[in-house]
Amino acid sequence: MTFQLVLNPGSPLRPIVVVEDNEMDLDFCLQAFEEHAIANPVVSCRDGEEAIRFIDTHVDPTDPKFPLLVLLDLRLPKVDGIDVLRHARQQPLWKQVPFIVLTTSSENADISAAYQHGVNSYIVKPVDFGSFAEVVKHIKVYWILTNEPPFPSANGH
Amino acid sequence: MTFQLVLNPGSPLRPIVVVEDNEMDLDFCLQAFEEHAIANPVVSCRDGEEAIRFIDTHVDPTDPKFPLLVLLDLRLPKVDGIDVLRHARQQPLWKQVPFIVLTTSSENADISAAYQHGVNSYIVKPVDFGSFAEVVKHIKVYWILTNEPPFPSANGH
Repeated sequence: MTFQLVLNPGSPLRPIVVVEDNEMDLDFCLQAFEEHAIANPVVSCRDGEEAIRFIDTHVDPTDPKFPLLVLLDLRLPKVDGIDVLRHARQQPLWKQVPFIVLTTSSENADISAAYQHGVNSYIVKPVDFGSFAEVVKHIKVYWILTNEPPFPSANGH
Repeated sequence: MTFQLVLNPGSPLRPIVVVEDNEMDLDFCLQAFEEHAIANPVVSCRDGEEAIRFIDTHVDPTDPKFPLLVLLDLRLPKVDGIDVLRHARQQPLWKQVPFIVLTTSSENADISAAYQHGVNSYIVKPVDFGSFAEVVKHIKVYWILTNEPPFPSANGH
């Protein structure tokens, strides 16, 4: 299995990477992206190993395929989400990429570990679709339309 | 001069720290906070030295006065914003506190330095009040109502 373009493959915008092993949660996410007309391509990584491979093979921030944003689940097969984050933050380039943890866990240990390892933001995923879609709307408004991303021409507006 | 509670002094919520030397920009900010009914107390630091003193004197995250969020200008008297950020990120406790750069600079060097030093988000401040108030609304919705803050009972909802 390798990372796949699962939404808007023809879009010239910067991709959003979704690291999520659960098929249903990924579908949920893609539906919410469509509902809020997120036009960026979406790349899916299905475990922590894939996410690390994505990081290690995307090292040119001037490449339009270099990502705008990573949405990271924590409980992942092979390599845990926190270890993916740790791996990214060890590299000057990937230290700059916004990572948002999107997880069902609201445990203090997870929240604290994520911030300690340099996550930009931590969101507890609501279980019902309506509330989850609201959260995706807030992510769009904030991270795609308001925040200034780390690399020039990476703003994906 | 020392840090001052400039809005909602009686509120039991976690404070938002605004590091801003320009009096007019600070007023602008407080007006926008009031417009969007941000109920958290607001603490103002008027230069980088004050911000560092605030960091060094707030080291108990169980204290309700420990901040929820820091809004940081970059061009500051005495100690630059990036140096304030660097100082915060050297401490395990303050490494976790969300910092948002809020500045007029959209220079790549500033954006890159902020992300390199572990800023959570970078926002280029719009010059007109209407657009600035919109940005403050997005900050409220995202950082006060959606994001899970690093310390328990620090969510300020």
